[in-house]
Amino acid sequence: MSSSAAVNVPAKPHAFAGVFGMLAPHLADLDRFLHAQLGAFEPEIRTMVDYCIDTSGKRLRPALVFLSGWREGKEPRADLVRLAAVVELVHLATLVHDDIMDEADVRRSRRTAAREYGPTAAVLLGDALFAHALHLATQFPTTEICAAVSESTRRVCAGEIVQTLRRGSTNITRADYQRIVDLKTAELFRVSCFLGAKLAGFAGDYVEAAARFGRHLGIAYQIYDDLVDFFGEETRIGKTLGTDLASGKLTLPLIALLERLPEAEAAALVAEISGQRPPQLALRLQQMNELGVFGVVAGAVETEIAAAKAALRPWPELSPTPLLLGLCEGLEAQVAGLGHRR
Amino acid sequence: MSSSAAVNVPAKPHAFAGVFGMLAPHLADLDRFLHAQLGAFEPEIRTMVDYCIDTSGKRLRPALVFLSGWREGKEPRADLVRLAAVVELVHLATLVHDDIMDEADVRRSRRTAAREYGPTAAVLLGDALFAHALHLATQFPTTEICAAVSESTRRVCAGEIVQTLRRGSTNITRADYQRIVDLKTAELFRVSCFLGAKLAGFAGDYVEAAARFGRHLGIAYQIYDDLVDFFGEETRIGKTLGTDLASGKLTLPLIALLERLPEAEAAALVAEISGQRPPQLALRLQQMNELGVFGVVAGAVETEIAAAKAALRPWPELSPTPLLLGLCEGLEAQVAGLGHRR
Repeated sequence: MSSSAAVNVPAKPHAFAGVFGMLAPHLADLDRFLHAQLGAFEPEIRTMVDYCIDTSGKRLRPALVFLSGWREGKEPRADLVRLAAVVELVHLATLVHDDIMDEADVRRSRRTAAREYGPTAAVLLGDALFAHALHLATQFPTTEICAAVSESTRRVCAGEIVQTLRRGSTNITRADYQRIVDLKTAELFRVSCFLGAKLAGFAGDYVEAAARFGRHLGIAYQIYDDLVDFFGEETRIGKTLGTDLASGKLTLPLIALLERLPEAEAAALVAEISGQRPPQLALRLQQMNELGVFGVVAGAVETEIAAAKAALRPWPELSPTPLLLGLCEGLEAQVAGLGHRR
Repeated sequence: MSSSAAVNVPAKPHAFAGVFGMLAPHLADLDRFLHAQLGAFEPEIRTMVDYCIDTSGKRLRPALVFLSGWREGKEPRADLVRLAAVVELVHLATLVHDDIMDEADVRRSRRTAAREYGPTAAVLLGDALFAHALHLATQFPTTEICAAVSESTRRVCAGEIVQTLRRGSTNITRADYQRIVDLKTAELFRVSCFLGAKLAGFAGDYVEAAARFGRHLGIAYQIYDDLVDFFGEETRIGKTLGTDLASGKLTLPLIALLERLPEAEAAALVAEISGQRPPQLALRLQQMNELGVFGVVAGAVETEIAAAKAALRPWPELSPTPLLLGLCEGLEAQVAGLGHRR
């Protein structure tokens, strides 16, 4: 982990900022493509769909598509743009549904679709986005893309169901946490890399390696995101810290803290997570610092990043490899940046 | 409309009871197929998926698939069973989401998924059912089935969004009502007939005719369903009458009543629909009877049934034709039965 990289953290936090410059034309094409989709929706719901598409989202999954399918000296390829739109629409649909369930008012500095149009319309709007994502996925010559994306979508939903049903429960092991993250986050990262490399025509071994890379990067990214919820800077991440504790979501920082607290303190934390006592965020952060929780969780990110890198090691000469490895370095720098701010 | 048919209404109301006897092996195959899908879902959510699949649902859309793809003397075909499962899963997913939005406690004599698992899990469970439906749709040789089903799914959602946003509004014309019904109900009927006939290998003209038949039958069925909400027998339909009035849903019987009431009475009804006054169901039913609303709405059903029949008229010799026309007669008998009970 390079501490010099950590000093130059960008003004807006973006774990993968380093490689995003080269993707500007690709992401511009993606935006044009997404907006061109509006015409495919029924006129009555176009404004609502536009509201969902027109986010200042990070477009991480499209970036994975473009980078995994990278060929030197080529214009953004139409099939990769379409695939990027598919995975982004699936992601946007899950956000619309997440925001209903979390009763979130604001995402990315504006009202959520659930708040803007009501939860009922938002359920259906998310459904329409899902349906159109899978419809776009049928516009490839074979059923392969749609099959992979629909399976991934089901796995993402399953992961979120498990997380939802476990909310407020403190009976969650690290294995349970890993399983939830694997389904709800890593799955869409995995399929983005898998299909990006596949569409670009790379050999089967490399396509599988890209999929493994994506999965491990996805797990690493989610653990990082859970770390930010405790160790980020509110002004930088644009949201309140400690929301996972307040909403009873047992993420890795809390699991690691529970493992390390003396029995009486652990019982008090359990009562906070299960909603029986008000959350003591400042105290819990202080205990995390005293008990080395940051290091433990950052170590878990590092382990996943190492697994992601290892997947690509046999193919240093293929064009996506250095770019995808650049994502790993960007994420490492972000984690180091959090460490510096503790 | 045959009044002798209306005398023999079945004990359990089923608009299409007449042709369902011959479909018993098909529907048994469908049930087996649907239950075999459980293994495709993540173990953590199988119980919930099983709960949704194991309904005493009418399986209307699967019936349309089997009948539109009917070839004499053949066993239930595997591809039609798969297609029937796709459309039924899409329908079940929309029911799971509908019941969240309607805050319904009971459907088909048991707790809704939303009540059993909570609205949050139910949003995601519906998503997982959608995703798996479209995944099954990719298990055909070409992308055609999945493309048609995903487009229909989007249209169904769009129709429900429009209906949701209009709830409590009395500014809905007959054209608006027709548009909502066309999207939210007729679309899945249409695609069931279209793809059933297509998979069975009928010629393009007939496939298009089956699609038109399905669309008009779907509109007719929804208008009938809206009529039942006022003119059904509670003990027979297993739900409370007048729910559309109580929930501010401006269906055709209410539109027709509004058109016929004197100004002051219409204003009072508008206040009931928009939730400003408690609904006066008995009074409104009496007015519907006095002003001939039943006949007007039954006439609208009849018009759609006539259009459905007309679509198939050029092909009396093809095996689905008499069966699909049988559905029309069943629905006519149901409407006549409602008329007898007024």
